[in-house]
Amino acid sequence: MKIEENDKLILLTNDDGLYAGGFKTLIRIMEDFGKVVVISTTEGRSAMSQALTVKQPLRVKLLVEDDRKRIYACSGTPADGIKLAVSQLLDRKPDLVVSGINHGSNASASILYSGTMAAALEGCLYGITSVGFSLNSYSSSADFSGCEEYIRDICTMLLREPLPTGVCLNVNFPAVPASEIKGMMVARQALGNWQEEFEKRKDPAGKTYYWLTGSFINHEPEASDTDDWAINNGYVSVVPVTIDMTAYSFMETLKSKL
Amino acid sequence: MKIEENDKLILLTNDDGLYAGGFKTLIRIMEDFGKVVVISTTEGRSAMSQALTVKQPLRVKLLVEDDRKRIYACSGTPADGIKLAVSQLLDRKPDLVVSGINHGSNASASILYSGTMAAALEGCLYGITSVGFSLNSYSSSADFSGCEEYIRDICTMLLREPLPTGVCLNVNFPAVPASEIKGMMVARQALGNWQEEFEKRKDPAGKTYYWLTGSFINHEPEASDTDDWAINNGYVSVVPVTIDMTAYSFMETLKSKL
Repeated sequence: MKIEENDKLILLTNDDGLYAGGFKTLIRIMEDFGKVVVISTTEGRSAMSQALTVKQPLRVKLLVEDDRKRIYACSGTPADGIKLAVSQLLDRKPDLVVSGINHGSNASASILYSGTMAAALEGCLYGITSVGFSLNSYSSSADFSGCEEYIRDICTMLLREPLPTGVCLNVNFPAVPASEIKGMMVARQALGNWQEEFEKRKDPAGKTYYWLTGSFINHEPEASDTDDWAINNGYVSVVPVTIDMTAYSFMETLKSKL
Repeated sequence: MKIEENDKLILLTNDDGLYAGGFKTLIRIMEDFGKVVVISTTEGRSAMSQALTVKQPLRVKLLVEDDRKRIYACSGTPADGIKLAVSQLLDRKPDLVVSGINHGSNASASILYSGTMAAALEGCLYGITSVGFSLNSYSSSADFSGCEEYIRDICTMLLREPLPTGVCLNVNFPAVPASEIKGMMVARQALGNWQEEFEKRKDPAGKTYYWLTGSFINHEPEASDTDDWAINNGYVSVVPVTIDMTAYSFMETLKSKL
């Protein structure tokens, strides 16, 4: 693949692995926008948050190269993949980092655990306009057809008007047919958390082990300006996300306490 | 260990592992505040961010129990450890989650990769007052004596006045002798990132692999209200951190674009 000066260069990743349905959909869409460099794992690295691989070396392998794209398999986390691509594999800074389409919502507190959104945050830390897409369905055979039109609109906008420093987008789709989507809604991150339901089991040697499971609880289900409300009411939620986690509203109070 | 109704119950973890010097210091200090439950890994899980273990089961082992504390070794990440302790190992909700003392700064963008701060965020998601402590030195033999007085003051305050919902504290110490610390400073997260310097090597079979290394760049070194400035100028930085990553200041602009 030759990248010309006028080409838009788009870096793609996900955390469900190279063979996930949502990723295939995203790669196909993004090939229409420019030259595409894809980096991900073969197996998927869900719930890796913005973890980095520091105790093991990273391996990377060029799997596919044609006129429009390069596909790399990488041994690391989504955040590792973005770092490796930007600093080692690409000759120039990409115009856009796109991550997803995740199988499962990354609305509300899920953003904190999400490898998909960690990749977008990583792009954002490099000063690249970045967006993560997720569908509110964990099914491996989920239907992503409703996402396409919105992904095209959002990426067209982002390539025309880059995001401000330190801001990326967290886009979540409702799991409904395309015809039932009511439109896009700029939303805020809902206040919620995962309620754990560890499954305690015994191994063949009689020793205890735990499987992490759980279900998400929205603490403000009535608030109609949140991402979780949006995807549960037929809207595509678009949350602008900041890398600055300072709780500004509590700073003055804290000063008076310390 | 018997936990009486009047006892303060404190949950401790870190990401450098059970045998790290900073953790031993923290456990010793926190035993003076109440009954202590410790959960961590033997090996350490640095740079794990808020990753969760979903493809492997978790193992946990009670290593030590005396009148004042219980120490568990856990196979998972810092966030896994907090989830497992709160939902499976403890009879009641802890009064405080304390994480650290990390060997290395978690100021600025480092918070996004930090297992130490992920544990504090995890406690915060459970509605527990939570704090992470870090020292601006990666040395395994770092001197933590300057931290003690401030940890006592902060934890006394937190046990008296719990933090608001969705807010935890990111406390970073300068790597200077106790006598040279100038005091505490409520600060904001500095805008910065890690500049990667991957080391490319060949394995004995001639295949390439990469080691992730890098150095932190503060993009606003002159701003004297940031956490990174504080620890480089002799102050203990205290940043109130929110789990809400919404970029509120960009919401209206984004609405006009979509």
